Formats: sequence, structure tokens, C-alpha cells
Amino acid sequence: MSQFSSSFFITVTNKMAMEIESFYTFGPHKISSKDVFYTTHLSFAFVNLRPVLPGHVLVCPLREVKRFADLTTDETNDLWTAAHKISGPLQSYHKAPSLTFTIQDGTQAGQSVPHVHIHIVPQKIDDSDKKLKQKVDSDIEWKDRSPEDRAQEAEEYRKFFL
Amino acid sequence: MSQFSSSFFITVTNKMAMEIESFYTFGPHKISSKDVFYTTHLSFAFVNLRPVLPGHVLVCPLREVKRFADLTTDETNDLWTAAHKISGPLQSYHKAPSLTFTIQDGTQAGQSVPHVHIHIVPQKIDDSDKKLKQKVDSDIEWKDRSPEDRAQEAEEYRKFFL
Repeated sequence: MSQFSSSFFITVTNKMAMEIESFYTFGPHKISSKDVFYTTHLSFAFVNLRPVLPGHVLVCPLREVKRFADLTTDETNDLWTAAHKISGPLQSYHKAPSLTFTIQDGTQAGQSVPHVHIHIVPQKIDDSDKKLKQKVDSDIEWKDRSPEDRAQEAEEYRKFFL
Repeated sequence: MSQFSSSFFITVTNKMAMEIESFYTFGPHKISSKDVFYTTHLSFAFVNLRPVLPGHVLVCPLREVKRFADLTTDETNDLWTAAHKISGPLQSYHKAPSLTFTIQDGTQAGQSVPHVHIHIVPQKIDDSDKKLKQKVDSDIEWKDRSPEDRAQEAEEYRKFFL
């Protein structure tokens, strides 16, 4: 009977957790907590609406500032410590031998959302193949992923930090 | 007479400083201290042998490790605090409204030197122009810059931190 109560309790709390959806600010966008898989007191990491490659995630300061130079030293350290912590398990999960970390800092650097963010992109293929891939990618029309798809990926990544 | 002595002393010490050339380890390469414009107790920043754009500099941990995940938290924080500090004056100096920060972390990400480094690249042109520029760049054969050219650029950047 106590076992039954316990699993009943777990079922109820999990259901409640699924139902409580909060949002994080990412420039003008609202990121569902379902898409967020790692948080600190100053930063959060979430799965991407339009990944350029599988496992392309974003790491972002909680405070909304446009440029990298606008961050305090504490925010800079926290942001990159978060990226550092995420990098190992993300790479293992995607069986990608390499990663790219990029901040597009300003409009002329391709920054489309005016809120500092690190792109972390797992990389599997060598340079020679990459040129071909870029050609192919440029011919593909990018589509938004579904909320379910994103929430499922975030759920997988949350397991890194249990 | 005391003024003469003083300027004589400054001339001698400046000459000595110019003659003492030390080297920093960057993977298998030795970077002349003449090319280094900023140092901390864990990191150093230097001008690039083959910049992709004017003002393309590298920031590197003093300890030679290949991957970002190999850095300690102290090294990660120091490296990005250095990049943060450099970014403002570098951008002003080049009158570039934007910057790109990138770590190519592993061979499949295009890392050619097995020693962690951040690329900081001033960016001036908008995306639409950039595609054309990339096309043009891909047709240019890259050449190494002269040691004199690099030392001169590093000398300019050192003035940021006086």
C-alpha cells in the first residue's frame, strides 16, 4: 500500500511539473521552460528552434543585454562555466568528436536576437565534407521545429545534470 | 643634466625591452612576445599570422591543452575575462560595429592548432555583403604576414591597456 501511495505521489508531482510551464526571456522571444535544460543563478541553456546541426543549443545570460561587453565579469564567468559544463555531455550524447562555440556579437556579426547568446554546435564531419554540406544546407528551406520535438530534446539533456 | 640622464635611461631601457624577445607556446608554434599584446596570469592574446579580416586576434590559455573541456574553471574564467576586456578597445580601434567570438573545439570543428584559442574577429559588413565577400575571399590565396607587420599591430593594441 505504501508502494502504491509512493508511485501515485510521483505520478501526481510529475504531472504537475509537466503542467507548470514558465518562460525565460530571450530578447523579444519567450522560451518555454520545457525547452530549457540547464540553469544557474545567472544563465540558462535551451534547445534551438532552428538548429543548424543536431544538438545545436544556446546558452544565454538571464539578464537581457545585447552585447558581450555589456555583461559583468560575474555574468561572463557564469555563462562560460555553464557552456563548459554542458559541452562534455552534449558532445558524448551526439557522438560528435568536436564542437563549435560562437558568439555573434552585433548585427554585422549575424546576431539576429539582441540578447547575448553562445551557440554550441556539435561537429561530426571533416572540413572537406563540410563545404559540400554547407552547399546542401544553403539550398534547404529551414523550418521551425515543433514544441513537442524541442521539449523532448530538452528532457534528454536534463538527464546530463541529474 | 638630470633631464638628459633621464631620457638616456628611458632610451636604453626601451631598447633593451625591444631586444628581449621571449616566446609563448601555442601548440607546436612559438609566438614572439612582440606579437603578444595582452597577458594575464593564465592567458595571453596575440595578433594573427593569417587574419581572416583586419583585427582578427587570438586569445589563448598559457597552459597547452587541446580542448575547451580540458580547461579548469579558473582558466575558463580568465580566458573569457581577457576576451571580454579586449573586445571593447579592439572594436573601437577597427571602427567595427560588431565582433565574432569563436572556439573551434576539435578537428571536425576546423581546429588546426591543438591548443584552445578564441578567435575574435571585428565585423563591419552586413550579411548580404558578407556572402559576396566570402566568395571573393575563397578565391584569394592567403599569405603569411611579416613579423614586422605583426609586431607593429601588437604594439598598437598594447596601448589599449596602458
